[in-house]
Amino acid sequence: MPGKVEQLSINYKTLERFKHFKEYGNQELSMLEDLESNIMENYVDSPFYGIYFGDNLIARMSLYKIRAKYDYYFEPPQDYLTLWKLEVLPEYQEKGYGKKLVDFAKGYGLPIKTNPRINSHSFWEKMGFQKAQYDMERDLGENPLIWLPEGVNEQESN
Amino acid sequence: MPGKVEQLSINYKTLERFKHFKEYGNQELSMLEDLESNIMENYVDSPFYGIYFGDNLIARMSLYKIRAKYDYYFEPPQDYLTLWKLEVLPEYQEKGYGKKLVDFAKGYGLPIKTNPRINSHSFWEKMGFQKAQYDMERDLGENPLIWLPEGVNEQESN
Repeated sequence: MPGKVEQLSINYKTLERFKHFKEYGNQELSMLEDLESNIMENYVDSPFYGIYFGDNLIARMSLYKIRAKYDYYFEPPQDYLTLWKLEVLPEYQEKGYGKKLVDFAKGYGLPIKTNPRINSHSFWEKMGFQKAQYDMERDLGENPLIWLPEGVNEQESN
Repeated sequence: MPGKVEQLSINYKTLERFKHFKEYGNQELSMLEDLESNIMENYVDSPFYGIYFGDNLIARMSLYKIRAKYDYYFEPPQDYLTLWKLEVLPEYQEKGYGKKLVDFAKGYGLPIKTNPRINSHSFWEKMGFQKAQYDMERDLGENPLIWLPEGVNEQESN
């Protein structure tokens, strides 16, 4: 099975590849603008991780560490990862690439929060994620799912 | 044209109607659990607004006021509305119901932030919304769009 997970450098080539993913949005447009105005070149510490198949980027996710100070999900409060834009191109789905990305994220040993797209709940359940207790003030338009490493609990909602 | 916008009481009947909308998620499941455990009955100050056509709920949105203290979008910082789950049932689309809901929200005279679903950008543009400058720490997996009433500006991102 090809493809190890790698951190993606943000450059024109990567952004061009991102256009093949459905969840292309303001984040990518903003990176493109930054490149165009030379604010950053090869934004090395990119939040994107992906899997290549030959020269094609076939799967990606965005992964970002939130500091303990802003942790409203886990007990004890701690640094955690927020994962979004997990997506595998249609012709490469059902081959384990999504799991590979999620396993990569779990490898940090930190709790993870994601806000999945509709209809992807069964995937997240297989990955061991559970619904967070919905707290309207905190979650608003989100459907938060969380993954708890050993010894970590969910915060009691108020 | 039928249908005025009304605040929806949260009861079993409303939650049953919500199942017809694609964006049915943790928020609704949580409300259902609360009802089942009698934590709230007819949660009157519901964040949901909708339009009925006869006895059918054909359009809805969630609308919630965020206090100025948490305003990271507008200048001067002020109370604003966050709007999500705007959705019109397929057979009632393109008839102005979405606009009716958005106009209702604008009627409060407060700035509005939304995080639209993919492919709905042209609708939001017609409604006078603009892309917020993407700030990764603030926006993470979102594609924030904002609406500015007269005299309100966007905050400079840092």
